[in-house]
Amino acid sequence: MNPAYDENNVFAQILRGEAPCIKLYEDDQTLAIMDIMPQTHGHVLVIPKEPAITLYDLSEESANACLKTVRLMGRAVEKAMGISGSTLFQHNGRVAGQSVPHFHFHIFPGSLKGLFEHAKRFEEPEVLEENARKIIAALATLDH
Amino acid sequence: MNPAYDENNVFAQILRGEAPCIKLYEDDQTLAIMDIMPQTHGHVLVIPKEPAITLYDLSEESANACLKTVRLMGRAVEKAMGISGSTLFQHNGRVAGQSVPHFHFHIFPGSLKGLFEHAKRFEEPEVLEENARKIIAALATLDH
Repeated sequence: MNPAYDENNVFAQILRGEAPCIKLYEDDQTLAIMDIMPQTHGHVLVIPKEPAITLYDLSEESANACLKTVRLMGRAVEKAMGISGSTLFQHNGRVAGQSVPHFHFHIFPGSLKGLFEHAKRFEEPEVLEENARKIIAALATLDH
Repeated sequence: MNPAYDENNVFAQILRGEAPCIKLYEDDQTLAIMDIMPQTHGHVLVIPKEPAITLYDLSEESANACLKTVRLMGRAVEKAMGISGSTLFQHNGRVAGQSVPHFHFHIFPGSLKGLFEHAKRFEEPEVLEENARKIIAALATLDH
């Protein structure tokens, strides 16, 4: 467990049965529930039972279990809402807009208006190369 | 392989070495490259070598390999850009805004302005319950 994990966050309370949720699916390692402040109809959250804040804190086993549940719930959401497409997103850290400090995947049917207007322009190659150098340098410092 | 997979999509071309990319990382099953139309500095794409369009077409093994690479690249991106947070997203299908029909995860440091303004209001419980019923009914029709 990440030492900074707050056991009083609302998803921890839901997992302990201390706070209500609209449960869609549960297995040994994950829980899928309705987002009660949805961005769109059919907005679902997939959370691990393992206490972890970010994707980087999660164990690989738990991360894979979450992804498996996302793959299941995404198909269910598309079918339920009658939309042949779905969007997955996930925030790590307050800076990235993570509101509840327990890891969660968001999944919903279709896209969100304004969520992602891809590719208005090509970036300058020099800028891309410079950023790539920084990332490759950071990568070299990480265990993998 | 999904029968609708288009072997001429740009990521397939990159994987075959027929189109250029700025490569950050590669392993047996995945490739991480710079997005050339980035939403923000440090916008990275993780793609599987397996030909698949969506998260639901991918094999579980390949999906897990992608997530492993995302977990690595996300940490590298945060470190490289000096931001203690990162956002992951992924689009399935044209309806969801998928621009290249080869599976890919987007990851970038921090959040995007306007990407996700969570939770302006609570949804009506009746609406959530109705959507939940639809999703649970769809789930019952799926193999898992």
